[in-house]
Amino acid sequence: MEASIKNNIKAADLERLQQLDQEMAQSRETVLGYPTSKDFDYSAINHFLDYPINNIGDPYEEGSTYKVHTHEFEREVVRFFAKLFRANPQDYWGYVTNGSSESNLYGLYLARESFPKGMVYYSESTHYSVRKNIHLLNIPSIVIRSQPNGEIDYEDFENTVRLNRHKPAIVLTTFGTTMYEAKDDVSRIKGILKNLAIHDHYIHCDGALAGTYGAFMDPRTPFDFKDGADSISISGHKFVGSPIPCGVIVTKKSTRDRIAKSISYIGSLDTTITGSRNGHSPLFLWYTLKKLGVEGLRARYESSLEVAQYCEMRLKEIGIDAWRNPGAITVVLPKVPASIQGKWQLATEGDKAHIICMPCITKAQIDAFVYDMANCEEEVEEKFEFDF
Amino acid sequence: MEASIKNNIKAADLERLQQLDQEMAQSRETVLGYPTSKDFDYSAINHFLDYPINNIGDPYEEGSTYKVHTHEFEREVVRFFAKLFRANPQDYWGYVTNGSSESNLYGLYLARESFPKGMVYYSESTHYSVRKNIHLLNIPSIVIRSQPNGEIDYEDFENTVRLNRHKPAIVLTTFGTTMYEAKDDVSRIKGILKNLAIHDHYIHCDGALAGTYGAFMDPRTPFDFKDGADSISISGHKFVGSPIPCGVIVTKKSTRDRIAKSISYIGSLDTTITGSRNGHSPLFLWYTLKKLGVEGLRARYESSLEVAQYCEMRLKEIGIDAWRNPGAITVVLPKVPASIQGKWQLATEGDKAHIICMPCITKAQIDAFVYDMANCEEEVEEKFEFDF
Repeated sequence: MEASIKNNIKAADLERLQQLDQEMAQSRETVLGYPTSKDFDYSAINHFLDYPINNIGDPYEEGSTYKVHTHEFEREVVRFFAKLFRANPQDYWGYVTNGSSESNLYGLYLARESFPKGMVYYSESTHYSVRKNIHLLNIPSIVIRSQPNGEIDYEDFENTVRLNRHKPAIVLTTFGTTMYEAKDDVSRIKGILKNLAIHDHYIHCDGALAGTYGAFMDPRTPFDFKDGADSISISGHKFVGSPIPCGVIVTKKSTRDRIAKSISYIGSLDTTITGSRNGHSPLFLWYTLKKLGVEGLRARYESSLEVAQYCEMRLKEIGIDAWRNPGAITVVLPKVPASIQGKWQLATEGDKAHIICMPCITKAQIDAFVYDMANCEEEVEEKFEFDF
Repeated sequence: MEASIKNNIKAADLERLQQLDQEMAQSRETVLGYPTSKDFDYSAINHFLDYPINNIGDPYEEGSTYKVHTHEFEREVVRFFAKLFRANPQDYWGYVTNGSSESNLYGLYLARESFPKGMVYYSESTHYSVRKNIHLLNIPSIVIRSQPNGEIDYEDFENTVRLNRHKPAIVLTTFGTTMYEAKDDVSRIKGILKNLAIHDHYIHCDGALAGTYGAFMDPRTPFDFKDGADSISISGHKFVGSPIPCGVIVTKKSTRDRIAKSISYIGSLDTTITGSRNGHSPLFLWYTLKKLGVEGLRARYESSLEVAQYCEMRLKEIGIDAWRNPGAITVVLPKVPASIQGKWQLATEGDKAHIICMPCITKAQIDAFVYDMANCEEEVEEKFEFDF
């Protein structure tokens, strides 16, 4: 039987890998519609892939017997964002997650544990994974109307909460919606709750894309701990850039401690959602943050903003009705012909498409896209939205 | 301001990375107590780290606009295990997860969606993350007693379920418990449910460690689809080996389709738990599975089993009360002195420790460990278990 045991991969399989490599190299060049930074260079730390790193458990709990972890680096990543999000230096906690879905799940989980009889409110522009999370956690919820720019409709929010004043309010705000990069104003939400005297409330801010640079916006939209958030989630693979989807959740240590008790009661000391955890992603994030520093991150945002302004202007010049939310790096435009959508990998919703001017996007790419748009003779396909 | 923007990482930070590298290289050599394969070599595909791969969404749903993914490879990984687990070739589905916690969460989620009024049963030896998952999903549950070897107590199970015959039964069986690598017999569980005429039932098998080689055990313990499981989860970073924690969930397509409907109702087409998903891990798993083939995986198990038998024998020779469950690669022994526990990174629970003879563990390492044990003059620390 020994003879049949393979020790090497077949030539045909290696060819498939080479083909995948080529396809990816090609596809990577023409992503305009997805919030992915492609300009990372982790060649200096890629060799850590030789190790089976596992950041199992709470990064702040020492004493894990398994020593191949990067908890120390993970804590520094959390600290960086806690500071950027103006958390109380004595009262913050967090960890690096597998992405914003897990970060949001964790925020909602903390909220539910804090207020088991709470009602969740979120706008219709909220990322679809949030609905999935709420369903998973089994919490009642109400969807609030969005304004045309994608921001939550504060009036609808106030009226809806008013009808449910007897219940604790859990609000999931979005700081940078998927399609229009609209930002819900956390201070305004907090003000409405205060006005209705709802003391039992929890605000989780989903800042997947824009949370990373929210601190640099001028003028800024309130979203952070000082503004009233109880937890904030961001993606690591979006604006910072990482080969593997990852995210960060930052919350208050006091909230986490409350949870730790209920978790300890069910026989677990682990306050994170998963058990075994990716220890490479914290290292990637740490590396970029150390390389950039706060000012480097700011410059990264300003450069994206400049490209976004350029993109909006160029599209308007050729008669396309493009627009942006204040401080947004996302340019919204009417739906584009199928060939252009496919080539530039543009996400489309309803009759709108968008270009996200991630740090890797250059003015030359915008020019190439604008050229395609100006010279495309294909019509935008009009489809019935519903079958009957 | 431009002058203050860093483009490079500081020398001190680089030194920290070098130190981490050294520490990891050292720690990696003396892991005997954790189910981690360290013998992987992905140097041929590490360069895929240059790409921001994202396996967003269901791997079987084509048409994602984002093209930098490895869905095709992911499906082949799922197919490999579906076949190994004797799933119906016309009725299986699955995806690569971030680890067993997510896989188990998904299995329980499918169970809850199938039977919203169900009661979950699991043994006290079940991994702690399962309790966390059940808490997260908000499902009522009952813990069943374990036998001394860590296997579920079938009598206690039968008596408990008998008292709850009016409720659908969701059973989480473990195939390889954390401490003793005990395996719950799925056929026996299924038989008990049949005997009690509980038609509405769902069995999820947590095969984090042993599920990967369960098919090669001789005699085998029933655990797979033919034996009665509705879903099976395994870890990828454990027996197969991967630098990043990952897992696989395999379930029935028909169950997944039922869920897809309820998910579609809440406005999401994505049947996975997270949105953005790691696309590198499927590639790692695919690579090793292609390299090994089924027979290579079998040989990998047989070699581990041989080392485990050797370890048990050597420990017994020096008068240590070591034992193994049938077909297990885990050797259980009484708690060891603190210095040895630390050096060899042995997980300890109560008065027991264990050595898991993962494929990377050699007889020479076992000899070195046995030498340390025979020559250690330190006493095992006796502590009061409770403060008062």
